[in-house]
Amino acid sequence: MARQERATRTRLAILNSAAEVFDEVGYEAAAISEILRRSETTKGALYFHFPSKRELAQEVLAKQLSVVPRVVPQNLVLQEAVDATLILAHMLRSGDGILRGSVRLTVEEGTPQDGLDRRMPMHNWVEHNRELLSRADKAGEILPDVDIEAAAQMFVAGFTGTQLLSKLLTGFDDMLERSAVMTKHLVTSIAVPSVLVRLDFTPERGRRVYEQAVKLRSDAEVPTNV
Amino acid sequence: MARQERATRTRLAILNSAAEVFDEVGYEAAAISEILRRSETTKGALYFHFPSKRELAQEVLAKQLSVVPRVVPQNLVLQEAVDATLILAHMLRSGDGILRGSVRLTVEEGTPQDGLDRRMPMHNWVEHNRELLSRADKAGEILPDVDIEAAAQMFVAGFTGTQLLSKLLTGFDDMLERSAVMTKHLVTSIAVPSVLVRLDFTPERGRRVYEQAVKLRSDAEVPTNV
Repeated sequence: MARQERATRTRLAILNSAAEVFDEVGYEAAAISEILRRSETTKGALYFHFPSKRELAQEVLAKQLSVVPRVVPQNLVLQEAVDATLILAHMLRSGDGILRGSVRLTVEEGTPQDGLDRRMPMHNWVEHNRELLSRADKAGEILPDVDIEAAAQMFVAGFTGTQLLSKLLTGFDDMLERSAVMTKHLVTSIAVPSVLVRLDFTPERGRRVYEQAVKLRSDAEVPTNV
Repeated sequence: MARQERATRTRLAILNSAAEVFDEVGYEAAAISEILRRSETTKGALYFHFPSKRELAQEVLAKQLSVVPRVVPQNLVLQEAVDATLILAHMLRSGDGILRGSVRLTVEEGTPQDGLDRRMPMHNWVEHNRELLSRADKAGEILPDVDIEAAAQMFVAGFTGTQLLSKLLTGFDDMLERSAVMTKHLVTSIAVPSVLVRLDFTPERGRRVYEQAVKLRSDAEVPTNV
């Protein structure tokens, strides 16, 4: 294994272990020793890649949006918006480490001293929703008086609260059902009726659209070693 | 001042200071010494009322629903539901200590070791919404196919995410506007149209309905010293 490849693997192992620990106990209580134990790395290796716990957490936060594969294009843009939510729900439900750890870091408020920027992933999600809803609007799928910016913020808030309740009350067991209900109600208030009746909100869709999205992403990757 | 009255005041001072500290730094980082400093009480007095930090936090959590005054009855039950949300938003915005501290304790996930029951306030809010929406349903204000239980859970999730984004992005500055948008969209998907057009979702309503609710509560209290 080339030195650079080994370094990349070590870095990823540290990130995954850190995300797991952040998910379990939060930023404040997360111990570097526990992250080292799980990633089977040395203190030297960890501090080579991440100068501090804060920078490690910030990198987990930065990866929140990028670990989620892009949805497979659909005839209706709003179906893509629904699918994006179901993919997120499926990943949290099935235990994606980086996503769970990152979402917990975003949702906990921390101390003024910890210096973590938790707004960045929220801004990224709002931006992502703004793009989707603007496309839906241009395609004539959105009711005329809808404030796209406010709707984008509302979708992020709705999902944030939904995952929080699902985790707290059921350990993410009902995450897909809850997300489907929330998304259906929010979309109902912004979609034109002729689009609304054609949308599929079934929770079971989550797994399928996730697998399609993963396949699309891996098909798009340029093979490096043929 | 009678001994019992003094004890009640001390207990309340401790609770308020603790809620403040929980709001600022969360449960894990909250220091008993800081709570003592702010409440101007002794360690002995604190441990007389609350045997541990956990019991102090649990009591702040238990008060979450009861610090919010009940809405003044309206012609439409759904207007009461809207008003209940606006009152909560107004109280978080204007800095109610117990509510802010308690909401933060609910939203942060804690460690498996901290032993706090964060589900209790969520269950209370869901129950409160279930009652309101069932009354609205009986009054013919809700569309026929709405799942009241799912809707009650969804309202709590929507509000939870809304307050989280508002705090994170604006320090609660836009809490009333965000809550009004979220509530309007959620109510839109469950209310019959003839009711919907009569509802008032303006954010400015928040302060007024809060003041009316406080007045109603104080009018209802039996005077003890006339």
